[in-house]
Amino acid sequence: MQVYRAPLDDVRFVLDEVLGYETTVATLPGYEEATLDAAMEILAEAARLCEGVLLPLNRTGDEEGCVLENGEVRTPAGFRGAYRELVVGGWLGLDGDPEHGGAGLPRVMWTAFDEMLCASNVSLETYAALTHSAGKLLLRHGSGEQKDRYAGKLVSGEWAGTMCLTEPHAGTDLGMIATRAEAAGDGAHRVTGTKIFVTAGEHDLTESIVHLVLAKLPDAPAGVRGISLFIVPKHRPGPGGGPAERNAVVCGSIEHKMGLGGSATCTLHFEGAHAELVGEPHTGIASMFTMMNASRIDVGIQGIGIGEIAYQSAAAYARERLQGRSPAGPQAPDLPADPIIVHPDVRRALLRARALTEAGRALALWLSVELDVAERHPDERRRQEADDLVALLTPVVKAACTDNGVEAANLALGVFGGHGYIRETGVEQLARDGRIAQIYEGTNGIQALDLVRRKLALHEGRLPRRFFDRVEGFCEEHGRDAELADFVGPLADAVRRLRRTTEWLAERGAADAEELAAAATDYLRLFALVTFAYLWARTARACLDPGQAPPPELREAKLATARFYMTRVLPEAVAHEQVITAGKGPLMALPAEAF
Amino acid sequence: MQVYRAPLDDVRFVLDEVLGYETTVATLPGYEEATLDAAMEILAEAARLCEGVLLPLNRTGDEEGCVLENGEVRTPAGFRGAYRELVVGGWLGLDGDPEHGGAGLPRVMWTAFDEMLCASNVSLETYAALTHSAGKLLLRHGSGEQKDRYAGKLVSGEWAGTMCLTEPHAGTDLGMIATRAEAAGDGAHRVTGTKIFVTAGEHDLTESIVHLVLAKLPDAPAGVRGISLFIVPKHRPGPGGGPAERNAVVCGSIEHKMGLGGSATCTLHFEGAHAELVGEPHTGIASMFTMMNASRIDVGIQGIGIGEIAYQSAAAYARERLQGRSPAGPQAPDLPADPIIVHPDVRRALLRARALTEAGRALALWLSVELDVAERHPDERRRQEADDLVALLTPVVKAACTDNGVEAANLALGVFGGHGYIRETGVEQLARDGRIAQIYEGTNGIQALDLVRRKLALHEGRLPRRFFDRVEGFCEEHGRDAELADFVGPLADAVRRLRRTTEWLAERGAADAEELAAAATDYLRLFALVTFAYLWARTARACLDPGQAPPPELREAKLATARFYMTRVLPEAVAHEQVITAGKGPLMALPAEAF
Repeated sequence: MQVYRAPLDDVRFVLDEVLGYETTVATLPGYEEATLDAAMEILAEAARLCEGVLLPLNRTGDEEGCVLENGEVRTPAGFRGAYRELVVGGWLGLDGDPEHGGAGLPRVMWTAFDEMLCASNVSLETYAALTHSAGKLLLRHGSGEQKDRYAGKLVSGEWAGTMCLTEPHAGTDLGMIATRAEAAGDGAHRVTGTKIFVTAGEHDLTESIVHLVLAKLPDAPAGVRGISLFIVPKHRPGPGGGPAERNAVVCGSIEHKMGLGGSATCTLHFEGAHAELVGEPHTGIASMFTMMNASRIDVGIQGIGIGEIAYQSAAAYARERLQGRSPAGPQAPDLPADPIIVHPDVRRALLRARALTEAGRALALWLSVELDVAERHPDERRRQEADDLVALLTPVVKAACTDNGVEAANLALGVFGGHGYIRETGVEQLARDGRIAQIYEGTNGIQALDLVRRKLALHEGRLPRRFFDRVEGFCEEHGRDAELADFVGPLADAVRRLRRTTEWLAERGAADAEELAAAATDYLRLFALVTFAYLWARTARACLDPGQAPPPELREAKLATARFYMTRVLPEAVAHEQVITAGKGPLMALPAEAF
Repeated sequence: MQVYRAPLDDVRFVLDEVLGYETTVATLPGYEEATLDAAMEILAEAARLCEGVLLPLNRTGDEEGCVLENGEVRTPAGFRGAYRELVVGGWLGLDGDPEHGGAGLPRVMWTAFDEMLCASNVSLETYAALTHSAGKLLLRHGSGEQKDRYAGKLVSGEWAGTMCLTEPHAGTDLGMIATRAEAAGDGAHRVTGTKIFVTAGEHDLTESIVHLVLAKLPDAPAGVRGISLFIVPKHRPGPGGGPAERNAVVCGSIEHKMGLGGSATCTLHFEGAHAELVGEPHTGIASMFTMMNASRIDVGIQGIGIGEIAYQSAAAYARERLQGRSPAGPQAPDLPADPIIVHPDVRRALLRARALTEAGRALALWLSVELDVAERHPDERRRQEADDLVALLTPVVKAACTDNGVEAANLALGVFGGHGYIRETGVEQLARDGRIAQIYEGTNGIQALDLVRRKLALHEGRLPRRFFDRVEGFCEEHGRDAELADFVGPLADAVRRLRRTTEWLAERGAADAEELAAAATDYLRLFALVTFAYLWARTARACLDPGQAPPPELREAKLATARFYMTRVLPEAVAHEQVITAGKGPLMALPAEAF
C-alpha cells in the first residue's frame, strides 16, 4: 500500500526553526504577506489535494499508462480531472508573476508544494512542473508579446509547457542537434526536425501545449553556441488568444518506460512547424540554462517526494506486519509474532530512507529560500552570496536527492520483502518511477562534472570557499557546546576531508582535466554527505536551542535521525576521499577495446 | 540491446589458474574424466544454447509475461521449446546422479552453466534451477520408492520441481505456517492450505510438476520444529510412471511483479491434495536446509549472470555511442563526437560492474569447487574444511552477489542514459529481474543474520577463524612480493579490519543479541569486500606467476580490474567498520510509533 500524509510539521519546522523563514523570506520585498502561518495554511490545502485527489491516481496511472491513438495521447483515467483541479485552484501559478495571473508567493512555497505533488503522483507532477518551468522561462526571456500570448496561459496552467532538447543522436551532447529553423518571412520561423524523450510532449490535459524547442538557424555556429530557442505552440493562438489552427508538430510515438507510466514521453516530429524565436539567435542554451537551477532543484524534489512516500509506506507496513521475534525477546508476547519494526535491520532501512529524505527536504527548502533571496534581497552582496550557494549546490540537490530517492524506494521495497516485488503493493513502482530522475535534466554524472569542472572553478573558487567558511564557521561557533558534540564533531571532521579533497582536486585537475572527471561522482557524493551533515547539525542545534520549541515528538525524532546520520551514513565520506585521491589511473588503464 | 557472450575464457581462467581445477576437482573420485578440457567443451556447447536459444527469448518473455487461464499457466512464446532443449540435451542433470539419469559431472560445472542460464534468461532459469534443486533434495532425503518415482523425472527435467514455503502471513517466519497435513490411511497424506509466491508453481513446460511442500502434521510441535516436508505431485504418477490423475492442487492466481515476468509466481491452493511425507515427521526444515547452501549459491549466481549481461550490454553501447569529447581532447577527431567510453565516469560505472561481477563469479566457482570437495574428497579433514568454507560464505555469495547484480544493472542503465529507461533497450529489465534475487531464498537481511548469528558462532568460531587464517596466510606468503604489493597491501589492511570488527562483534554480541542484528548487513558487506579482495589478489597472483600463462589480453584486463577493485571499491571497508562499531544505539533510540 502506498501510504502518504504530507509532512507539513517537518516543512514548518525546517522553514521556521532551521531556515528562519520569517526573517529570511517574509521580509523580502513583495513577500510581506507570505507569513509562515499564511504559507502553512496554503500548504495544508495543497496537502488535502495531493492526498485526496492525486495519490489515489498514482498506482492506477502506472497500471493504465498513456495511450497514443491517431496522434493524440490519452492520459490515465482521472488525470484530466486532477490536473483541472490544479489549474482551477491556481496551484501552478503559486509563485508566478501576479502581472500574469500568478499568486506571487515565494519560490520556496513551490518547492514545498512540488514535493507533495511528487510524492503523491510524480507522473502527474511532470505535466505541472514542465508547465511551471516553461512559464518562468518565457517570463524571463520572452518578448512582451510572447509573454502576453503564452506566459499567462502557462502560469494559470490553462496550457501546458514542454522542453524539447534531446534527439536520437544528441542527448548529453546538445551541440550535435540537427533540428533546424528557417525564417518564414513573416517574422516567424519554421522548425523541422525530430525530438525524442519529450516529457509531457502530447496529452489530453490541456487545450494546447507550448513547446520550447532547441533548433539551429541556417547561419548557426557549430556546437552549443549555435543553438536557438523557439516557441512552437501545438495550436497557433487565435485572435482572441484561444487555441486556433493546429501546428505542424506530430507525436510519432510514446515510449514504453521502466516507470513514470502516467507521464507521456513523446517523439515529436516538427514538420516545418510555425515557431517564434525566443530572445536573440544562438542564445538558446543560455536561456535554457538560466532556468536550469530551478528545474534541477525540481528534479531533485522528485527524489525527495519519492523517498518520502516510500519511507511512509514502509514504516506503516513495518509497524503492522508480524513476523519473527525481536532478538531481545518477544516484544508483543500476546501476538503470534512481533511487528517487524523491532528488528534492527528493518530500522536501519527505515532510518536511512528517512535521514536521506529529510536532509534532502531541508536542502531543497534551503536552496529555494536562497533562490528567493537571490531574486529579491535589497542588498546586492547578499543576493550574490545566495546566488553562489544555489549555483554550487544545485548539482548536489539534483544528483544526491535523486540517487537517494531511488535508494529509499529500494530500501522500502526490501522492508516489504516478497510483497514489495508485487505490483499491487505499489512500492516497486516508486523505485521504477524514481529511476528516471537520476537521468533526465542532465544525468547525475553530468551534475558531478558541473560541480567539479564549473562550480568549483567559478570566480576563482569563491563558491566552495564561501561554503566551507560557512560550515567551518558553524563548527567553530558550536564547537564547545557539549550537547552538540555528537553532531558538530563528525561534521567538522567531514568538512576537513572535503576541503582537503577539494584542494587535492584543484591541484591535480589544473594539469589534467581527466583527473577532475575521474573524481566527479565520488566528489559530488562526498559534497552531499557534508552538506547533509551540516543541515542535520543545524537541525540538532534548532532542537536543542532553549529559545526554540519544536513539538517534543518531532524534536526527539529529529535528534535520533540526526544521530543515525552522523554515525551510520556520514562515515561513507572516508571511503569517498580514499577513492578520489586514488586518482584517474585505475579508470584509464584499460584500452577501450578491452571492455 | 541486450548483448551477451558467455564468458568462457574467464571461467576457464578462474577454474584453471585461480582454483586449480585439475588438482582440486578432477582428482576427486568419480570426476577423473571431467578434465578441464572436457568441462570447457561441454560449457562451450551450453554457451551456444544460451546465446542462441535463451537470450532471444529474454526480452520477449518479459514483455509477454505468463498468463493464467482456467487454472493453467501459459509461459511466454518460445519458452516451451527452449526448456525442451534443456531437457533433451540432458542439461538439467549435468551434475545429477548417474544412477538416476544424470551426467554425474561436478557441481562446479552446474555453477558455470547456471550463470549462463541466468545471464541469457533468468526467468527461464527459475524453472530449471528449481527442478535441479528439487531433484537434489529428493535424492538426498527421499525414500527409495520416492527416488524411483520422482527423482529421475527431475534429474532429466521431464517433470519440473517447486518449493512451496511462504504463506500470506508467514514469509521469513516459517514457524507460523498454517498448511496442514493429515494421514490418508493408505500411507499417504492429504495436504490442505494455501502457499503464495511459489516460483514456477504452475506452467506448461512439463507434463507434470513435483511440489515440495512444507506443512504441519496434527501432532506437530509449535514453530519451525513442527514442520514436515511433503511431495505433492501435480499429477499422481500412474502405474507406468507417467502422469495420471490430476491432484487437488490449484493455481489460484499468478503475481504481477516488478520483473521476472517469464517466471510464473503462483498462489497454490492445496485442497486435500495427495501427498507423500519426505523423511521423518517434523524434519522438513532440516531437509530444506540441507539444500539451502546450494540453492542460495544458485540465487547468488542470478546476480552474477545479470551483472554479466548488464556489463556486456553497457560496454558494447559505450564503445559505440558517440556523445561529447574526452576531457583530454578529441579521441576520434574524424567523428562528430567521441565514443562515451572515453569518459572516466562511464569507465567507472563499467569497471565497477565488471569488478563486482567477476569477483562474484570467482566466489561462486570457488564455493562450488568446495561443495564438490566437501562431497567427494577422501580426506575427512579436507571435507570438513570445505564444508566450513561453504557454510561461512554461502550467505555472502547470496547477498553480496544479488546486491551487486542489481547495482551492475543500474550502472549499465545509467551508461545508456535516457535510452536505458526505455523498455525496448532491454537494460531496465535486468534491474527489475535482478531485484527479486535480493529477497527470495531468504532476504539479504536474513543472510546477514545467518552470517553474524549462526556462521560466526558455529564450532566456537572455527569458520571465520579458518577463513581469516587462510587470507592472512596468503598475505604473509606474498607480503614481500613487490609486484603484488598493490593487491596484498590493501587486502592485508582490510582483513585486519574484518578480524578486529569480528572480535568487537563477538564481545558485544555475547551480551546483547540486538548488537549482532544491528551490525549484520554492514558486517556482511565488509565480509564480502574482503572476500572479493582476496579473490582479486589471488587473481593478480595467477596473472603475475611466471609459471602460469593466461592470454595476454585477459591478463591485462584482470590486473587492471583488480587494481580498480583495490583502489575504488575496497575503501568502503573503512566506512563499514565505523558504522558497525557505532553499535545499535542509533538504530534503537526511536520508539516504534515515532516511525
